[in-house]
Amino acid sequence: MIIRPPRHWFIRLFAWHGSVLPDILFRLFLNLLMSIVAVYTFDWYKTLGIKLTLAPFSLLGIAIAVFLGFRNNVCYGRYTEARVLWGNLLIACRTVQRQVIAVCPQERESIMQLLLAFCYSLKHQLRGSEATADLTRLLGDDAQNILARRTPTNTLVLQLSQRLAARRQAGELSEMVYVNLDQSLKQLSAVQAGCERLVSTPVPFAYTLLLHRTVYLFCCLLPFALVPDLHYMTPLVSVLVSYSFLSIDTLAEELEMPFGREGNHLPLDAICHNIEINLREMNDENPLPADLRPDAWYRLT
Amino acid sequence: MIIRPPRHWFIRLFAWHGSVLPDILFRLFLNLLMSIVAVYTFDWYKTLGIKLTLAPFSLLGIAIAVFLGFRNNVCYGRYTEARVLWGNLLIACRTVQRQVIAVCPQERESIMQLLLAFCYSLKHQLRGSEATADLTRLLGDDAQNILARRTPTNTLVLQLSQRLAARRQAGELSEMVYVNLDQSLKQLSAVQAGCERLVSTPVPFAYTLLLHRTVYLFCCLLPFALVPDLHYMTPLVSVLVSYSFLSIDTLAEELEMPFGREGNHLPLDAICHNIEINLREMNDENPLPADLRPDAWYRLT
Amino acid sequence: MIIRPPRHWFIRLFAWHGSVLPDILFRLFLNLLMSIVAVYTFDWYKTLGIKLTLAPFSLLGIAIAVFLGFRNNVCYGRYTEARVLWGNLLIACRTVQRQVIAVCPQERESIMQLLLAFCYSLKHQLRGSEATADLTRLLGDDAQNILARRTPTNTLVLQLSQRLAARRQAGELSEMVYVNLDQSLKQLSAVQAGCERLVSTPVPFAYTLLLHRTVYLFCCLLPFALVPDLHYMTPLVSVLVSYSFLSIDTLAEELEMPFGREGNHLPLDAICHNIEINLREMNDENPLPADLRPDAWYRLT
Amino acid sequence: MIIRPPRHWFIRLFAWHGSVLPDILFRLFLNLLMSIVAVYTFDWYKTLGIKLTLAPFSLLGIAIAVFLGFRNNVCYGRYTEARVLWGNLLIACRTVQRQVIAVCPQERESIMQLLLAFCYSLKHQLRGSEATADLTRLLGDDAQNILARRTPTNTLVLQLSQRLAARRQAGELSEMVYVNLDQSLKQLSAVQAGCERLVSTPVPFAYTLLLHRTVYLFCCLLPFALVPDLHYMTPLVSVLVSYSFLSIDTLAEELEMPFGREGNHLPLDAICHNIEINLREMNDENPLPADLRPDAWYRLT
Amino acid sequence: MIIRPPRHWFIRLFAWHGSVLPDILFRLFLNLLMSIVAVYTFDWYKTLGIKLTLAPFSLLGIAIAVFLGFRNNVCYGRYTEARVLWGNLLIACRTVQRQVIAVCPQERESIMQLLLAFCYSLKHQLRGSEATADLTRLLGDDAQNILARRTPTNTLVLQLSQRLAARRQAGELSEMVYVNLDQSLKQLSAVQAGCERLVSTPVPFAYTLLLHRTVYLFCCLLPFALVPDLHYMTPLVSVLVSYSFLSIDTLAEELEMPFGREGNHLPLDAICHNIEINLREMNDENPLPADLRPDAWYRLT
Repeated sequence: MIIRPPRHWFIRLFAWHGSVLPDILFRLFLNLLMSIVAVYTFDWYKTLGIKLTLAPFSLLGIAIAVFLGFRNNVCYGRYTEARVLWGNLLIACRTVQRQVIAVCPQERESIMQLLLAFCYSLKHQLRGSEATADLTRLLGDDAQNILARRTPTNTLVLQLSQRLAARRQAGELSEMVYVNLDQSLKQLSAVQAGCERLVSTPVPFAYTLLLHRTVYLFCCLLPFALVPDLHYMTPLVSVLVSYSFLSIDTLAEELEMPFGREGNHLPLDAICHNIEINLREMNDENPLPADLRPDAWYRLT
Repeated sequence: MIIRPPRHWFIRLFAWHGSVLPDILFRLFLNLLMSIVAVYTFDWYKTLGIKLTLAPFSLLGIAIAVFLGFRNNVCYGRYTEARVLWGNLLIACRTVQRQVIAVCPQERESIMQLLLAFCYSLKHQLRGSEATADLTRLLGDDAQNILARRTPTNTLVLQLSQRLAARRQAGELSEMVYVNLDQSLKQLSAVQAGCERLVSTPVPFAYTLLLHRTVYLFCCLLPFALVPDLHYMTPLVSVLVSYSFLSIDTLAEELEMPFGREGNHLPLDAICHNIEINLREMNDENPLPADLRPDAWYRLT
Repeated sequence: MIIRPPRHWFIRLFAWHGSVLPDILFRLFLNLLMSIVAVYTFDWYKTLGIKLTLAPFSLLGIAIAVFLGFRNNVCYGRYTEARVLWGNLLIACRTVQRQVIAVCPQERESIMQLLLAFCYSLKHQLRGSEATADLTRLLGDDAQNILARRTPTNTLVLQLSQRLAARRQAGELSEMVYVNLDQSLKQLSAVQAGCERLVSTPVPFAYTLLLHRTVYLFCCLLPFALVPDLHYMTPLVSVLVSYSFLSIDTLAEELEMPFGREGNHLPLDAICHNIEINLREMNDENPLPADLRPDAWYRLT
Repeated sequence: MIIRPPRHWFIRLFAWHGSVLPDILFRLFLNLLMSIVAVYTFDWYKTLGIKLTLAPFSLLGIAIAVFLGFRNNVCYGRYTEARVLWGNLLIACRTVQRQVIAVCPQERESIMQLLLAFCYSLKHQLRGSEATADLTRLLGDDAQNILARRTPTNTLVLQLSQRLAARRQAGELSEMVYVNLDQSLKQLSAVQAGCERLVSTPVPFAYTLLLHRTVYLFCCLLPFALVPDLHYMTPLVSVLVSYSFLSIDTLAEELEMPFGREGNHLPLDAICHNIEINLREMNDENPLPADLRPDAWYRLT
Repeated sequence: MIIRPPRHWFIRLFAWHGSVLPDILFRLFLNLLMSIVAVYTFDWYKTLGIKLTLAPFSLLGIAIAVFLGFRNNVCYGRYTEARVLWGNLLIACRTVQRQVIAVCPQERESIMQLLLAFCYSLKHQLRGSEATADLTRLLGDDAQNILARRTPTNTLVLQLSQRLAARRQAGELSEMVYVNLDQSLKQLSAVQAGCERLVSTPVPFAYTLLLHRTVYLFCCLLPFALVPDLHYMTPLVSVLVSYSFLSIDTLAEELEMPFGREGNHLPLDAICHNIEINLREMNDENPLPADLRPDAWYRLT
């Protein structure tokens, strides 16, 4: 499915996206308040010998640029890696299903169910949500055995493996073809372990703390540094600079753990749904479930 | 085919490329207008106590540089990844065809048709255009069955797979050679899923919004910050700075979704055509279709 | 397991993380002292014709930004690579175990013990700690032969290999399936050699020295450069800038060698423990060991 | 062969390399001229109310730094990728030859000729030069059939493939060993398609235009911005800044299409020659051709 | 082996590392001299209308930051790639040896000698040193045949290959297992070709020239630009800035060709030695050679 947000520059300028901005609105308001305080108390605190100029802030700005740029790259890299892993899942599912249809068509139905169960189980594992409904729909009573496990997703790969091993034992799959299928199962394992790695290893917390503190202190002190130069224009410029620094920080934050259900997270529901449509059509099922559609903000969950 | 845009620096300086500049001309004109307003109202609004200096804009410039640089890298990365995927498609097509010619020459014609149908179907899927003409040309009546599917491109891989599986069943392909061909089919799947990933996962929309807004506000306020220093020269410098910021932003935008038919998009028509020439010559067809040539702006579609 | 540090911005601002800050507190205090000296001796040393302004420090700031940014990327890259290697270890262990269960279930117990011994032995090798307890728990008396070796971890791969080779010799594993298992053992070797490479090749020491010296001299001279502009505000800004430069330097330092037991190091204990749970559940053991839980600062060892 | 340019810093400072500088000399001279004009007309045009200061140029400098850095990375990346591809060609050639010597020594001569013909044909295809001489030298009369093709390089892979397939048909190569050789042929295809991709997909032309224009306008206006501060020193600084910007731009330009015969292009002649020496020595030929030597500027073609 | 340079910040500040600094000491001294000249002639040359300010140097500083950052990344990337290649060599050697022990134990001794000869021969080839002693130690009289070749390292892979092919011919290795071993030999080839690529393709010389010249001119002019602001403090700041720019440039230079025996080069002696210990212990040899230890500056050769 092709997803295209609106491209006209004027629309984009005023589009309300529903993410990031609501999270930082309160802090922007605080910054505005502090700017106004700075403007009105400037003449008084100047007499106390307190002054701040913009020059040292450029210097600090360089340091923050290094931090923000680094953290943003890292978090977006996690988001992209997560998306690539789920893209690999689509490849692996299609490939296993195609191979099974070609060399062992009697298992096409049962393998498809296990593959879909793997996808949904992985999704629920990553989101910390309840897999019972999806697994029961796909596997029927067998779902209970899976759900009772500590590592249900891994158990599903094991079951796929054992199903194929049984056919090999029965002489229906040659060694060569069995090993070829086994290679594809390995890719399911790789996707699972890659996602688990992302979810259990956040960016070192010290980075996040360090960046937050530096950015916040910077935004707090900024109005006082701007006031000698800009006077009445201080609130405008201060809020604009704070907006750009705080929102890139917040956005990076959201992308760090991309498996949730928030605005800029990966649409795992839609991806699982798409895998289901693909595998079911490969098995000539008819009719197929309808596509999921993005909401008014071009978002899928 | 070797594609070389003109290299002389003087020609490049004034070359009309037909992309990017037309998209931002209107906004540059607005910026020029605002600069002129700034120059002529400067003396008046200064008396109101409103002043803007360049110092805070350097600071904002750093933030925007981080954003623009990041987004530009990401979008160009998508463009490059898309091009690599289509390069891999050429490798996979040549390899499958070569292997089929070597071990199963009786299928060389039918496999070629399916491979070409795969390429054209993928192109149309990515561009959201109509695949009927191309598929009918290649597959004849079989095209209808493909086109009726929800996932036509994937169905073509399945048909390739089943064609080879039938030969294996008939004992004409050994297990080993069959698995080797199957590995190459997997690469077709990988190309398809990679392209689908790019097309269904734009850069998080919040990045685009954030960047647009910051860049536009920056360009709007810039003339007022330049005027105290530059006076009559304000329009020149303001338009130059805006030109560079807006055009890198617009160019990144175009590269984000590289499968279209615009100026800087990938020449999928030419790539498909090239694959067709390669496969047909491998089957000793004669005469071959002519090469596609770039237009006056060194562009192919 | 999903690990999520607290996300509210206000909590983060004042959270005490227990890493980085304690390491640089003394140096920050020195910087504060020097700032106060600068403020109170400014009038005096100015009369000697000594003056420092901020402009050359911006220039030096650019150079330091290049260095810090580079070193930070490199060290974080090492951290990430180490994490990916241990993620690959999980994939390899699950895959070997799955394959053994499918094609050679009589070895499932002994192979699991060797796989776990490999993981724990690698962990202890990388941390320079004592492997005796873990290996004895897993291998019993055989542990002595392993521990007596100069390269115990590599010896464990060799034992895995010989165990499978014996089954192949006995005709219980076909050539094809044996080679498939051998490929998975190769991945264990790749993980081991990757970790050994990280641990035996620090970032060239000259980088570290160069960066330390430049950052420290910069922080020492900074108060004297700030004082003409900021006077009483010098200590605040000087400590803020030093905090951001020193902490990113210190953090990079910690991530450079990510196999230790400090705050931001990889939780190898938890990773090994998780592999153990996975493999034991694949062998249907019951009950399984409990999960390790992060401490109050969201850290695992 | 180890290639080492001179390392002493003093020699390097004045070394004449013969590339880049000649290309930009004329533009540097224009810049010098414009600087002198700026110095001598400064007093006059100042009276017209025209003034330019350096501050907005720092801002523009940031934008240009982002552009230049990006384009430089991209072009150097293409150069490196091209070099890696030709390194992979060496690996693939050595491996095919080694495998053929081990399992099918009766074909060692003919396969070597086809491998070398592949390398030379690819070189000529990428440079748009005439392959007749090299192919005739290697293949004798068969060269005509290859040269008459639209895709001669690909045809050579096909011939390699068919040669091996004939041996397999004759029962001289087992399925397993045949597939192993086929995998190595696939790498030849991958190298070819990778190089074709680089050569048919320049960096989007809009980037080049955008960067040229911005850099040139920047360099043109720079003297007028420097003159109020530096007066007589304007030409020195202006030419120095222009030198650094223009030469990195020109160098990136040269690396963008690395398959030519210019100063900083890849030494394809030497690489092909080296492959020939390697393969001929593997076939115990004697005497071998002499090594190619770099010229006085440490360059090979 | 775990290599840890000292971590205390105070020790690091004054540690004498023995690399980089000695190379630039003379140039730093020149810079100091020029600073003193600038301070004492300032009043005189100012009367000639010659003046330099810091503002244009910030601009040049940005350009140099782009260059230095780029070249540093590229050179460190070469260093890392070289290290990874030698890490892969360790993986490949262990794997070949392990596989040979498992499936063809009668060749374990001779294969080990050839593997070690390959490692030492590659080391000597990359360093341009004499391989006779090492090869004679390992291979005895056979060393002469190898050393007489133009491509001795590649010949060793060929001999490994032929040794295994002979066993296959004799029916002692199945096709499957032979191909598996052949894949591992391919990795030796890949390591060799990768190292040869690094050694025969320096970073384009034009980059090095360009960067040297810009950095040196910058450092030469810097004192004259600092003197109006800093007066007596000029030498301190000028030497500090020059130190950071020159040393990162020199360090990058050293890492560009990482196969030598200088301070920051790869410890190929130690790596070869480590491979030897590993392989010999896999063959149960006893006693093993002692580990190599780093010298007082934490360096190995």
